[in-house]
Amino acid sequence: MPRYALQVEYHGAPFAGWQRQADQPSVQGAIEAALARLEPGPHTIAAAGRTDAGVHATGQVAHCDLTKDWDPFRLSEALNHHLKPDPVAIRNCARVEDDWHARFSAVERRYLFRLLMRRAPATHEAGLVWQINHRLDADLLRQGAAHLVGHHDFTTFRSTICQAKSPVKTLDEIRIEEVETLSGPEIHFHLRARSFLHNQVRSIVGTLERVGAGSWPPARVAEALDAKDRAACGPVCPPQGLYLTGVGYPDDPFAAG
Amino acid sequence: MPRYALQVEYHGAPFAGWQRQADQPSVQGAIEAALARLEPGPHTIAAAGRTDAGVHATGQVAHCDLTKDWDPFRLSEALNHHLKPDPVAIRNCARVEDDWHARFSAVERRYLFRLLMRRAPATHEAGLVWQINHRLDADLLRQGAAHLVGHHDFTTFRSTICQAKSPVKTLDEIRIEEVETLSGPEIHFHLRARSFLHNQVRSIVGTLERVGAGSWPPARVAEALDAKDRAACGPVCPPQGLYLTGVGYPDDPFAAG
Repeated sequence: MPRYALQVEYHGAPFAGWQRQADQPSVQGAIEAALARLEPGPHTIAAAGRTDAGVHATGQVAHCDLTKDWDPFRLSEALNHHLKPDPVAIRNCARVEDDWHARFSAVERRYLFRLLMRRAPATHEAGLVWQINHRLDADLLRQGAAHLVGHHDFTTFRSTICQAKSPVKTLDEIRIEEVETLSGPEIHFHLRARSFLHNQVRSIVGTLERVGAGSWPPARVAEALDAKDRAACGPVCPPQGLYLTGVGYPDDPFAAG
Repeated sequence: MPRYALQVEYHGAPFAGWQRQADQPSVQGAIEAALARLEPGPHTIAAAGRTDAGVHATGQVAHCDLTKDWDPFRLSEALNHHLKPDPVAIRNCARVEDDWHARFSAVERRYLFRLLMRRAPATHEAGLVWQINHRLDADLLRQGAAHLVGHHDFTTFRSTICQAKSPVKTLDEIRIEEVETLSGPEIHFHLRARSFLHNQVRSIVGTLERVGAGSWPPARVAEALDAKDRAACGPVCPPQGLYLTGVGYPDDPFAAG
């Protein structure tokens, strides 16, 4: 059966998360239902990152197996047709080798977290950012973040239900960008690693927010990390500012697209 | 009665436009209802630009008269509280002179039109951009736009129901910007003038789209303008990419805020 890689964008709000669930809408379920309109199912697709409820993606990657030999462009068009009106879109599609795996072949995940700093309730960006009423100091954010980059035991920064075998991960980058948008000043946190623990990005951003607000000295981030204790983490921030923006593979399956 | 200037942001989708209507939701009606929660009405507010159904604002300006001497910050907070859950937000509020008028004191209006160029249906930006399937050439867009900047009879580019006394206006600027967003490549049209005719921005952008797509040579924009004939206009583009981003006054009432 030919295998296809799908680059997937979605708005997280209406979904209980990526993963298929018996009684709640999921992104995986929406795509599998669209596949079933093309070829009889059941279909089971795998994704690079199983995002939580409310989390968005612009560059999630999944793969599916089909019996027919589909032209990748026509497959993406057909899926987008059947995905309507769900806010899920196939941005790219490519034929891949039979042993290529969206999750196990991935060597990098990239996340963006958007934080909007203003008092008036967001209108256009409601549900697409984490909004706070106060301003953060980007230099303090960068000082705090510097303690987290590298190879560490991230026990403090993972949820207690995280199923990863080891809490030791290498965080390759936290880039902090100040962006002036139509809605006001935002901080964008760009995080990059081979893989992430459950709730790791939201735990890190929530902790750094305390640093940027001046409530935590930057060095307290190092202490929290060294504690290897979930209780030492700052408040975990909400999901609606988080985007899975890209997944890296040794050979980019979408390079030609 | 003390007068207050309000800087207003709204998502245009749920509204029949700015202007109050008897049987349909309007932005003006939403704000007047919020004012009535603060002081007995009826309230009638005036705005710099009466935007159409579906059109957004990030910097609309309106004014209201109240009997109580409100602290401007507390007034904006109280209005935002009562505006929920409507996607309307008071971003700024200032006390102004009794003869200051949001519409008649204005000397400049600024609009942004967002056009997203991609095939896959937009998810996060649905309703916030005009999406087209093909790419536009920004140099061609700029060549076409150059014919429209300046003092002209814009009969071709105004709706047949436009109530302005004269079709002669000075268009100070059309700036065309290529922007790479999370959702893909966008063209941003920034337009600036003392005032605009009804549907002028959407008529201009719809016409320029034909130029950017290569269907119209840029010189045809000059011919259309010279024709002074609504029938010479290109297709009027949809409202959901349009934002009233700012209004200029001889003295910025929000300068201190």
